[in-house]
Amino acid sequence: MTETKLITPKKLKGFWELMPKEQLLFSSILDKIEEVFKKNCFLPLDTPVLEYSEVLLAKSGGSVDKEIYRFTKGDTDMCMRYDLTVPLARFVSMHKDELDFPFKRFQIGKVYRGERPQKGRFREFYQCDADIIGDGDLSIVADAECISLFEKCFKALKLEIEIHVSNRKFLAGFIDFIQMKDKTSEILIILDKLDKISEEDAIQELMELGIGYNECATLIRFTKTKGSFKEVFKALKLYCGNETSNAGLYELQELEKYLDDFGCENVIVDMGVIRGHNYYTGTVFEGFLKGNEGGAVGGGGRYENLCGYFSEKNMPGVGMSVGVTRLFDILMQNGHFEKEKTNEIDIAVINFDNTLDDSLRIVNDFRERGIKAECFYENKSFKSKMKEANRRQVKYILVVGEDEVKTRRFNLKNMETGEQTAMDLQEVVETISNSHEN
Amino acid sequence: MTETKLITPKKLKGFWELMPKEQLLFSSILDKIEEVFKKNCFLPLDTPVLEYSEVLLAKSGGSVDKEIYRFTKGDTDMCMRYDLTVPLARFVSMHKDELDFPFKRFQIGKVYRGERPQKGRFREFYQCDADIIGDGDLSIVADAECISLFEKCFKALKLEIEIHVSNRKFLAGFIDFIQMKDKTSEILIILDKLDKISEEDAIQELMELGIGYNECATLIRFTKTKGSFKEVFKALKLYCGNETSNAGLYELQELEKYLDDFGCENVIVDMGVIRGHNYYTGTVFEGFLKGNEGGAVGGGGRYENLCGYFSEKNMPGVGMSVGVTRLFDILMQNGHFEKEKTNEIDIAVINFDNTLDDSLRIVNDFRERGIKAECFYENKSFKSKMKEANRRQVKYILVVGEDEVKTRRFNLKNMETGEQTAMDLQEVVETISNSHEN
Repeated sequence: MTETKLITPKKLKGFWELMPKEQLLFSSILDKIEEVFKKNCFLPLDTPVLEYSEVLLAKSGGSVDKEIYRFTKGDTDMCMRYDLTVPLARFVSMHKDELDFPFKRFQIGKVYRGERPQKGRFREFYQCDADIIGDGDLSIVADAECISLFEKCFKALKLEIEIHVSNRKFLAGFIDFIQMKDKTSEILIILDKLDKISEEDAIQELMELGIGYNECATLIRFTKTKGSFKEVFKALKLYCGNETSNAGLYELQELEKYLDDFGCENVIVDMGVIRGHNYYTGTVFEGFLKGNEGGAVGGGGRYENLCGYFSEKNMPGVGMSVGVTRLFDILMQNGHFEKEKTNEIDIAVINFDNTLDDSLRIVNDFRERGIKAECFYENKSFKSKMKEANRRQVKYILVVGEDEVKTRRFNLKNMETGEQTAMDLQEVVETISNSHEN
Repeated sequence: MTETKLITPKKLKGFWELMPKEQLLFSSILDKIEEVFKKNCFLPLDTPVLEYSEVLLAKSGGSVDKEIYRFTKGDTDMCMRYDLTVPLARFVSMHKDELDFPFKRFQIGKVYRGERPQKGRFREFYQCDADIIGDGDLSIVADAECISLFEKCFKALKLEIEIHVSNRKFLAGFIDFIQMKDKTSEILIILDKLDKISEEDAIQELMELGIGYNECATLIRFTKTKGSFKEVFKALKLYCGNETSNAGLYELQELEKYLDDFGCENVIVDMGVIRGHNYYTGTVFEGFLKGNEGGAVGGGGRYENLCGYFSEKNMPGVGMSVGVTRLFDILMQNGHFEKEKTNEIDIAVINFDNTLDDSLRIVNDFRERGIKAECFYENKSFKSKMKEANRRQVKYILVVGEDEVKTRRFNLKNMETGEQTAMDLQEVVETISNSHEN
């Protein structure tokens, strides 16, 4: 080994990796979200990380292409997935005759985007997606169910959230009304940038598309409309008339009713929510952590046809996605986890004399009873084992020597209070189990 | 959309993907294994799927290279991981001053090998790994802990397993004794193939390396030695004398004692267990499902220096890995899950008249109480909703019409027994919760 040239160990730039204690916290977030998905009757899916390029790029616009990890092996041209939606479309198209519709699936997995690394953006990150896919039709109830599910995820994480919903049809109808229908996606892209560029610049860009100044001003006014369902309906009713716009407002009204049925409480209407993706056609929404200035921590919406590139069958869908890597990043920076105890080890068994075998048996017995017990079995001094227990913030210590083994009475030390109590092993188990419950 | 050229939706060849009901079963296997790892004080790690090629290929031999998914993006030469051990070595080398040693980590994740697809082999598959890494030294207790952990994983899955252990030092010592030390890895590769090639062919290959016929026969006799610890010690004691061989036998004896401390019951010694990987240096083991003819469903062993390619620090380790994709594949083929109920939906709320809002509220209330409730909210006939409930094997059905909403008395139908009972919602919750417990 000593002759081998050493290679500097390093992780790829822009790739995310947590230390084990942080990973414990992150995993528990994923677990809680998964629990919510399951309770709401969504079924798990776990598609491969790689797909045929032809399949994965079927629907993506030019701007996504540059970011994609694409390569060939043998004759096969493949890509790493950049989201979980295209793989879902591929899966549903392949298995449409075997699935029950509406098909409710969730997937928690990593996706890959070779963007320039920057704060809060990673090249590999987790998405927690849940979607409902209809066969031909899909009730607006599904839109409400997805938004409510999104809210429930954050409730399970004990995080306060505000959800901003809109409906793309309202703006699309107005764009149709001013006879700019073929420029719809360009217009939406400009309006979507209004949190980054000034109103003047946006109007400038819109006018370059051939829209008159007054219509530009109206478009921008629409995107600034924000408030309770009631307030927004009142503000927008005047502008309606066009069939598509009316459908947008009608869907919003239906949505409000069903959100109420699902007990959804933290929703406002915000016509400025557009969502970048081209494929959204109706309801769109984004979630923001209360008291946090940063951008959305997830969102979703309705798309008219999930599988249009793969199948002639019409399959509308609605989905939600929690940007859980970004969320965790924000929470870490906010010091959210500072008071959280990760509880790696419940009890350390520290032995001296010739009691290693007995100590291992005790540890094994504790573990079988669901207690995270550890034995520092390396050949170190009693003192250095105590130090290690301290450093690793172990809550309880059990000292095992030959006398203890003989009498079956052990000293349990609570490291937080300093208290020491002599007891038998059954009492140790009870003490620790009780401390779990508190 | 109709003008778009349709693309055939297909999954990459050799990549694994389960239908949602199978995925439920597979996920529950991963969850149970993770639970065992956590209970035994292993910490989670989740390294990126991609690594620098320089890092990932630092230790791999030529035969692995062909299988690796390697590509460049911009100036970066990278690979998809083919196991979870090299990323662990990279991580430990980078963070050696921040970690507590022995460092016990687990990782459950997908790995990638572009092999020719064949039965039971996949290009993307899960590994469930747990390793213990020492700083300078590592007690043989750690070897026993890993083997015991491996057994506990299968216990948690209610699968009977037999673990075959060996120690590479025994053979290595004999190879040294016959002065073939520089050919050790070639010899081990030949002996490792003895389940695939005949003894005559093996002797032929060994003799081509320059080993005499008698020594070849002895080598093969060693690999056939199999039985309880006691039987094997008796059979092998005569051959010892060489220091390395003696160390191998001594370590096996120590291992037996600690395995006993950890309550490990299903272990035999099998000197034929060699494990392909070059890096194992002491204890090696493999697990076999009882009553199943197929190969090993996992294994592991001791390596003298995990991080030799990245660091001058000596870090011995021992690990175990459950080949959980392969295991699941075997279990599916054995019909292991036929009796398993996946229980997608506990109760379907089927409404008629104008009761959709009430039904959604009821469903939402059930879900909040931990019951998987579903409402078929699509605009379909009562009859077709009943059919759907039947097809999806829903256990209970609650019928909701205007009378039921008014009187707050509902008919709960048990679809297994056909029994119908009128009750209020609180009683419904109790009935279903009780059926969970049974």
